[in-house]
Amino acid sequence: VSERSIDLNADLGESFGRWRLGDDDALLAVVSSANVACGFHAGDPSTMRRSCELAVRHGVRIGAQVGYRDLVGFGRREIDYEPAELADDVLYQIGALDGFARAAGDRVRYVKPHGALYNRTVRDRRQADAVTAAVAAYDRSLPLLGLPGSSLLASAAEAGLDTVGEAFADRAYTATGELTPRRVPGAVLADEDAVLAQVTRLVTEQQVIALTGELVPMRAGSLCVHGDTPGAARLAVQVRATLTAAGVRVAAFR
Amino acid sequence: VSERSIDLNADLGESFGRWRLGDDDALLAVVSSANVACGFHAGDPSTMRRSCELAVRHGVRIGAQVGYRDLVGFGRREIDYEPAELADDVLYQIGALDGFARAAGDRVRYVKPHGALYNRTVRDRRQADAVTAAVAAYDRSLPLLGLPGSSLLASAAEAGLDTVGEAFADRAYTATGELTPRRVPGAVLADEDAVLAQVTRLVTEQQVIALTGELVPMRAGSLCVHGDTPGAARLAVQVRATLTAAGVRVAAFR
Amino acid sequence: VSERSIDLNADLGESFGRWRLGDDDALLAVVSSANVACGFHAGDPSTMRRSCELAVRHGVRIGAQVGYRDLVGFGRREIDYEPAELADDVLYQIGALDGFARAAGDRVRYVKPHGALYNRTVRDRRQADAVTAAVAAYDRSLPLLGLPGSSLLASAAEAGLDTVGEAFADRAYTATGELTPRRVPGAVLADEDAVLAQVTRLVTEQQVIALTGELVPMRAGSLCVHGDTPGAARLAVQVRATLTAAGVRVAAFR
Amino acid sequence: VSERSIDLNADLGESFGRWRLGDDDALLAVVSSANVACGFHAGDPSTMRRSCELAVRHGVRIGAQVGYRDLVGFGRREIDYEPAELADDVLYQIGALDGFARAAGDRVRYVKPHGALYNRTVRDRRQADAVTAAVAAYDRSLPLLGLPGSSLLASAAEAGLDTVGEAFADRAYTATGELTPRRVPGAVLADEDAVLAQVTRLVTEQQVIALTGELVPMRAGSLCVHGDTPGAARLAVQVRATLTAAGVRVAAFR
Repeated sequence: VSERSIDLNADLGESFGRWRLGDDDALLAVVSSANVACGFHAGDPSTMRRSCELAVRHGVRIGAQVGYRDLVGFGRREIDYEPAELADDVLYQIGALDGFARAAGDRVRYVKPHGALYNRTVRDRRQADAVTAAVAAYDRSLPLLGLPGSSLLASAAEAGLDTVGEAFADRAYTATGELTPRRVPGAVLADEDAVLAQVTRLVTEQQVIALTGELVPMRAGSLCVHGDTPGAARLAVQVRATLTAAGVRVAAFR
Repeated sequence: VSERSIDLNADLGESFGRWRLGDDDALLAVVSSANVACGFHAGDPSTMRRSCELAVRHGVRIGAQVGYRDLVGFGRREIDYEPAELADDVLYQIGALDGFARAAGDRVRYVKPHGALYNRTVRDRRQADAVTAAVAAYDRSLPLLGLPGSSLLASAAEAGLDTVGEAFADRAYTATGELTPRRVPGAVLADEDAVLAQVTRLVTEQQVIALTGELVPMRAGSLCVHGDTPGAARLAVQVRATLTAAGVRVAAFR
Repeated sequence: VSERSIDLNADLGESFGRWRLGDDDALLAVVSSANVACGFHAGDPSTMRRSCELAVRHGVRIGAQVGYRDLVGFGRREIDYEPAELADDVLYQIGALDGFARAAGDRVRYVKPHGALYNRTVRDRRQADAVTAAVAAYDRSLPLLGLPGSSLLASAAEAGLDTVGEAFADRAYTATGELTPRRVPGAVLADEDAVLAQVTRLVTEQQVIALTGELVPMRAGSLCVHGDTPGAARLAVQVRATLTAAGVRVAAFR
Repeated sequence: VSERSIDLNADLGESFGRWRLGDDDALLAVVSSANVACGFHAGDPSTMRRSCELAVRHGVRIGAQVGYRDLVGFGRREIDYEPAELADDVLYQIGALDGFARAAGDRVRYVKPHGALYNRTVRDRRQADAVTAAVAAYDRSLPLLGLPGSSLLASAAEAGLDTVGEAFADRAYTATGELTPRRVPGAVLADEDAVLAQVTRLVTEQQVIALTGELVPMRAGSLCVHGDTPGAARLAVQVRATLTAAGVRVAAFR
């Protein structure tokens, strides 16, 4: 990734049936990559179709946001899958979303785990390998989007897949470059100025200031913003404006 | 389809998690086309992967057996879907199965509705159009397998899709060529000789004898056998032997 | 029901996991009976527990709002259940909710079908009998809440169960006292004054003016208000104020 | 429990819709307590109703076999529930089953966790407390059935609930009285004589011989047999005959 451009990604299509979540329209005007839920933790088929159509209309890249099979828990509960069964669940989700992406005139361009699967594959190599195996079985040209230094990206790289490290605009980091757990006070940057300062530092200095004060190197090809809370979509707009002001173009990776 | 060859199809991959159903191994040695369940009425991702791998190993063609979202009812309850939502559910299932088919080295080659969706689309043109729309959106080269004279095949043909009419080895027909409803005594041919006689008449004379005695013309490119009841797989073997004895080769359509 | 008091009911507890729906807190300050979703079309166990606790705290009566097993369709798609299976699904839901109601210090006090099950049992006596059978099997003292003149209330009455007819504050009626189908323009009273006028006429004259102009007798022991759309909870407050102004006390039936 | 009688329990009602599992009829002729699945890991409402009716007909006590919400994994995957949500899921299941038990003329008499929830609550006190809290909220007179020495029974006892320790006829124990993990060779006693010898030792000496050879004290109020594999129901018959031959009566605890 050039220092002069960065990808901006956000979770999308997380409604389910009668239940609506997130401000997808607002986010699609801001991001370059949409992590579209695939029906296991969120997202029903009609929502997936609409999300893909909207993404194509906005010129936003479609990624498969794959999760555990856990609607009621929104994919936020860690589950002790057998790795082979996890790989099959991930492959199923990628294929299902790709059908809608292709019907909309594009295709799935990358894969990003959601929620507890994201967190689990930061450190659990067996589940990381399962996700990698699914992506490799489906299409070896699909990059995996994840946390720099995670088991997931290590697994994918060893398997010869492309990887893209992402940074979070609104999350506090530890001194070793991991995400501060949500239960720790200050784990989520509540202050708008703090978020925008972290964004600026990320793209101009390739580093962040940890919650404990240390400067931590952080090379990211993509920046994650959120849209499922009040004000989140508005903040995403400001993140993009901040990038532009810093002379950094928002563009999908690769 | 030449008069000297016919396709033989059966439902496969209808297990779910811990629950096993059908004798897939036995059927795969007999049929030329496997209607693989896609997870909505039966079939979990790991079962789908195994079914696709086995089908490829046996040189059996993979079809998407799409159904209503109704695991507990096994897709046998008619549901009043909005057509657009039904199309999305069907497209989702085709894409999901295609991922496993491609990972196994082949791809989905046709689509066949299951259970209540099969029966409903015999006469409900709106739901038939929904299935057709899903197939057309995914891949216009995929044929639809269904009942000759059904709304489904009419819809598909009008949309420019290929269609394949199927006959049932073990079901009794009405004088107008429809399936005798299951609640009518004699609707399912219980006698082995009757099944084999119907098969012979289908492939040599292109007709069946209705339950009420009439001769009914019946041109079918595929013959459906079942494998989910005791003795069913064994009967399928005999159907195939009967075809061979009649000089008819079993081969996937097209 | 005395002419000087009426029950006010609303659907509650229709969130599911991460997804929130309805303004339950506002409604609980207004109604005397809460139709709590039981997990099949909406409502997860934690939502059910909270709904029961809140209802008890507000002195609001708890009813089981039973629906088809159809989360993604929110119970709004008619399903051709076998009656025995429908009865079992309904009994399951009542028992599950009653556990939370009892844990909260009260119990389920009545049963009301939701969505497509409500509409289907207006005219389908087999499904109506299934609902009645479930209620009778669980507790013969539970009344059924439904549309006056429906198959459901006829079935329940013949089975010796108590019934309570309900009227809708915001729905237009036909000349025969049925609900005008939603697809007909004017089926839902959009105008606030029209809603409040219908409420006043219902409680003072026991009649409504049909969409086509006729005066229709309408004796209802309960009045249904909605809370799942913007402004709905506020309108419910005005309905209650209108009742009070008309000298009609809001109180749970029986 | 008198030394001259012991309870015999087995899992029942683990079918789901079209999928059948276990030989419930055979088991009901053998056991004194039936752990009936409640719909989250297995068991649909119609299966639950039938199981309760059959249990009552056979004079077999009904217990709620509660599990994680995981149909496809059959409740065998550990899930990191929030304890409060786990308690709600357990309470939901108990209430739902109790509806069928009461409709059949009896009621739920005890609670036993299934699969991964059983294993998890052997050592995870937070999840154990969640199960205990659900039982206490529903009915403080319901005993919990579990592994002697487990966190679950400790939690229940501290909460003032009754507990019943169970032993397994066909599982090998460690020197500390825990179950040998299934991945260890010999974890399941394959030999019929070994099973019956363990049963005899359990009821006459209140001890077992560990897989590693040690004599381990084991006081159990109930003995668990299985019925979901070929030959299992037949073995259960022999276990009962062995108990009778040893002068031990089979009778439900308390």
